[in-house]
Amino acid sequence: MNFRARRTKAARAVSRAGVDGLLVTHLPDVRYLCGFTGSNAALTLSGSKAVLFTDGRYTAQAKAEATGTRVVIAKKPAVTAACESLAEAGVKRCGFDAEQTTVALLDSMRKAVPAKVRRGMFVPVQPLIARLREVKDSDEIAKIRAAAQLGCQLFDEMLEYLRPGLTEREVAATLEHRARLAGAEAMSFETIVASGERSAFPHGRASEAKLPRRGFVTLDFGVVLDGYMSDMTRTVHLGKAQSEEREVYDAVLEAQQVAVSAVAAGVTAGDVDEAARSVLRGAGLDGWFTHSTGHGVGLEIHEGPRLAARQTQPLEQGMVITIEPGVYMPGKFGLRIEDMVLVTAAGGEVLTPSVKAWIEL
Amino acid sequence: MNFRARRTKAARAVSRAGVDGLLVTHLPDVRYLCGFTGSNAALTLSGSKAVLFTDGRYTAQAKAEATGTRVVIAKKPAVTAACESLAEAGVKRCGFDAEQTTVALLDSMRKAVPAKVRRGMFVPVQPLIARLREVKDSDEIAKIRAAAQLGCQLFDEMLEYLRPGLTEREVAATLEHRARLAGAEAMSFETIVASGERSAFPHGRASEAKLPRRGFVTLDFGVVLDGYMSDMTRTVHLGKAQSEEREVYDAVLEAQQVAVSAVAAGVTAGDVDEAARSVLRGAGLDGWFTHSTGHGVGLEIHEGPRLAARQTQPLEQGMVITIEPGVYMPGKFGLRIEDMVLVTAAGGEVLTPSVKAWIEL
Repeated sequence: MNFRARRTKAARAVSRAGVDGLLVTHLPDVRYLCGFTGSNAALTLSGSKAVLFTDGRYTAQAKAEATGTRVVIAKKPAVTAACESLAEAGVKRCGFDAEQTTVALLDSMRKAVPAKVRRGMFVPVQPLIARLREVKDSDEIAKIRAAAQLGCQLFDEMLEYLRPGLTEREVAATLEHRARLAGAEAMSFETIVASGERSAFPHGRASEAKLPRRGFVTLDFGVVLDGYMSDMTRTVHLGKAQSEEREVYDAVLEAQQVAVSAVAAGVTAGDVDEAARSVLRGAGLDGWFTHSTGHGVGLEIHEGPRLAARQTQPLEQGMVITIEPGVYMPGKFGLRIEDMVLVTAAGGEVLTPSVKAWIEL
Repeated sequence: MNFRARRTKAARAVSRAGVDGLLVTHLPDVRYLCGFTGSNAALTLSGSKAVLFTDGRYTAQAKAEATGTRVVIAKKPAVTAACESLAEAGVKRCGFDAEQTTVALLDSMRKAVPAKVRRGMFVPVQPLIARLREVKDSDEIAKIRAAAQLGCQLFDEMLEYLRPGLTEREVAATLEHRARLAGAEAMSFETIVASGERSAFPHGRASEAKLPRRGFVTLDFGVVLDGYMSDMTRTVHLGKAQSEEREVYDAVLEAQQVAVSAVAAGVTAGDVDEAARSVLRGAGLDGWFTHSTGHGVGLEIHEGPRLAARQTQPLEQGMVITIEPGVYMPGKFGLRIEDMVLVTAAGGEVLTPSVKAWIEL
């Protein structure tokens, strides 16, 4: 992983933000900038210098993982040690991510520096590192690709397994077990298995409900491989479908495909959302599409960009996003189809090529 | 669940904190106060009135789950709607939990209320609801007991399964699969399986390492049942042990048992920590006991009280805590033994009675 290149970009962002240092406490940001994966860390950036602060539990791990940073094993809270060090280094205005810093933490940051520099020392800035992380480098794309491929392999296996009478929880248990055996460190999020009427819940937790003889089953899941996450959704039908089910499926599939086709560097996130939404509008189904079209994925399951109505952010080459329209009709049924898509200069490359044509099991 | 009683206690705490309302945004706190389990919520308390704010995805769920609160389905962010409502209701000083509120969220809270009341409207207060949650009521104790029992059952099953050559990840996969099939909604945290030299990592992620012919295996895991978590650790030995391994095990076991015996309402958290630490000190092992002795468990895996050196907080009847001393010798081996303990008037009741005597498999 080219941590040096990431920190060079970070240093430029820090400079553009008008501060002379940055305190990074959000753990995925720390990992992104230096490779350290421990559960307690603060990283300071000032100019080209990065210092990682953690505690004695992580002495060996920090040495093994952290790349290109000095490591300080602190007796005090890592953030306190980091702030003291920033003040000692003469940093006058230090940025911090207001979305990742609690009011209590900011208070402790201020208390860690001498009263005479405290005023004006810590400056809320935009989420600079989160913004950098939206565009993946080649190492990251390789890891995300591997996670997405494992997701597809697992879905294909599940097609052999799904049958009426299994509980949703058994389905989740089996999927997660196979994921683990195939090398997944963890699932990206709580596996969603929503069947029959429950398919109308966009985020139906796997319950004790049994898969029906006739009806939809939505599987939405992801795996973590080497820290990077996958995310995909497929909806299959058990037994013979009613014509309305088939019609809604075809509309969602078309919306999903049209939105995937709309992806390209330079297109706005809102335009991709609108591409999906307009297909469903044409089918009279947009009132049942109650969430946004997608989001970035990487070290976290929900990252920028956000693909929602009126989002003017342009997509950039190297972003990895989900495209996941759905239709949910309470008391009847629902379904969603979701791929991960890599934004390229030419368009979008689907990273989750599992079949999404109509499947009746 | 007696949500009304909880809210009555909360109202008293709010009043004692010198504010005339409380904005609750931490989801476990919201669940505790009204039963709602959705992923987007804000709850306002003022006097005896509670109002839950969420969004359209949760219309049905909020109606089904939220008990004794008015429900508002907001088009705006739930927190924004909640703050507007507080201002309209004439709340002048509204407390918020500084440990659960980001700087960015506080900024949006302030912007949601009219400029003329903004100044002084939001007041950081101690974590009032987290503090109430430390003492479990009878409904909660029943749920925690069930989760702890399932944990014990799973550990007993694993004793039949563990053998040299399995990878740590296979062990975690099997444990989690069985947990799911037995009804667990999720694991409380990433399952720890640390074997051989890796047992010296206090929080060793299950890796591709194979269980050794001779050496320790530490299992630290928990399950979630109906929202409540369990947490337990056992360390077993594969093959014939060296005398040092056995000696260290016996010392940790004694430390754990002495600390469990020290638990009672009125005893301080620091005294229980010291009970464990002093046994290890007597054995010359306290330098390898690098973490605190335990923590509260409930809707979250780490809650108060914190059982660490110099903690003066007295234990109270109804608290559920872990007692989990360990010794970790880098490059050699490590081990930990952990129970969940319910604080009673008379002492402590172990909720995880799985065998903790020396086991050689």
